[in-house]
Amino acid sequence: MNKRTAFFISDGTGITAEALGKSLLAQFERIQFEFVTKPYIDTVQKAQALLLVINETAQRDGSRPLIIDTVVDQKIRDVLHSSEAFKIDVFSTFLSPLEQELSSQSSYTVGRTHAIPKDASYKSRIDSVHFALDNDDGARTHQYDKADVILVGVSRCGKTPTCLYMALQFGIRAANYPFTEEDMFDFNLPKALKPYKHKLFGLTIDPQRLAAIRHERRPGTRYSSLTQCEREVHEVEELYRRHAISFVDSTHYSIEEISTRILAECGIERRFSPK
Amino acid sequence: MNKRTAFFISDGTGITAEALGKSLLAQFERIQFEFVTKPYIDTVQKAQALLLVINETAQRDGSRPLIIDTVVDQKIRDVLHSSEAFKIDVFSTFLSPLEQELSSQSSYTVGRTHAIPKDASYKSRIDSVHFALDNDDGARTHQYDKADVILVGVSRCGKTPTCLYMALQFGIRAANYPFTEEDMFDFNLPKALKPYKHKLFGLTIDPQRLAAIRHERRPGTRYSSLTQCEREVHEVEELYRRHAISFVDSTHYSIEEISTRILAECGIERRFSPK
Repeated sequence: MNKRTAFFISDGTGITAEALGKSLLAQFERIQFEFVTKPYIDTVQKAQALLLVINETAQRDGSRPLIIDTVVDQKIRDVLHSSEAFKIDVFSTFLSPLEQELSSQSSYTVGRTHAIPKDASYKSRIDSVHFALDNDDGARTHQYDKADVILVGVSRCGKTPTCLYMALQFGIRAANYPFTEEDMFDFNLPKALKPYKHKLFGLTIDPQRLAAIRHERRPGTRYSSLTQCEREVHEVEELYRRHAISFVDSTHYSIEEISTRILAECGIERRFSPK
Repeated sequence: MNKRTAFFISDGTGITAEALGKSLLAQFERIQFEFVTKPYIDTVQKAQALLLVINETAQRDGSRPLIIDTVVDQKIRDVLHSSEAFKIDVFSTFLSPLEQELSSQSSYTVGRTHAIPKDASYKSRIDSVHFALDNDDGARTHQYDKADVILVGVSRCGKTPTCLYMALQFGIRAANYPFTEEDMFDFNLPKALKPYKHKLFGLTIDPQRLAAIRHERRPGTRYSSLTQCEREVHEVEELYRRHAISFVDSTHYSIEEISTRILAECGIERRFSPK
């Protein structure tokens, strides 16, 4: 299988170039790619050093590398574009049509896309991270009135990373509550959750996968046994159905997918989103 | 000031379309934008419903909306592109040149860009989130041998959100240790950190900002007084210089910037990156 190296290059964090590049190249299943992300290429000197790497890579691979870049400064771009690579030039491709459409010149300010003002939305992001930590794993229940959403599910089904992701990426205040057998034996909602039924969102998971995850934490215990995991998952899904709680299976979805589906289903507006 | 609405549309999470769209539009300072992200537009029916919204928005704004989309399915794209909006059509713009360059057909699979296999790198991501939580705020110090980086700084300068971001976005195992006055009075490194000096990365912050953050948590205390914050920040920066610890000021940088700068400076390879 033919191998190609793709460079995601930015004068800032490289997050946009990487996200775009991977989305495009994911469409080519037959090609084996090596991804290299190069953030903070914000001087001609850094660009010249990278130019050497790119051209050496071309020699090594025996095929020319791909460049997906979001560099704004023209001098830096000129250096990169003098390389042997195949270029996906995002800004020059889209900015001039946009300038016409908006009948406005674009300000080619290096770092502009990454200058995040510490405004109210940014503050809500940090506050949300601390909210998620304070309200993790049912530690507290008295702040549920301030929560945007309360994730529920059995222990180790993925609640905590999802809450933290929603806080960091969207400034959402997400608490999470782990169902125990005691909670579920009569299929009623725990007292702490009853007043907030409209804020509940469920996670479920394949019992095999759950057992594997729990086994790493507490090998050979009842907690990590397949029988126990099957029983808890069965009961929690029954609970979701009885109380009409929307839920998603974390076995095959990523944190990004779970989080964005929760926002979409619950109609929650993002307080913050990365610029 | 002339206002334009920009729709970021995807058949998946919408994260790529949003990141790209915001990077492009951030170049137009004079235009006031309203951003609308529409993920999971994965059926013709959903596209038709969205089409109405887009055309209504054109009426309301008195100027045509912008569409930045990463939808792969042609039928869905046709619906969206029948709207009155100005389109930035990422995939059709870049996929055909890529097909030629790679002499390979792209697989226009809906959701492909968002299908994240639960492979080793994904697992390292989840493990890293739990590592960051277990090793937050100096809670434990006996796992520092397993850490990729140990963030240090005074209380509330931004260590925790940065560690969690590095874990979620890059699968990096990041611990953090808060310097107390006791730690700093003689400008020596705390015992727990001495063996891991090469893993340390410092954060600093503007004392005014720090006082404001601490005031929210413990108003009117010595902890949140400007004098105290000035003193701690002065001492911690002195400590960084004495021990040649790289550090960054979190006052004006975003979590994305701080995290990617740390990786770049420390030469840490990403174990995971969002696909």
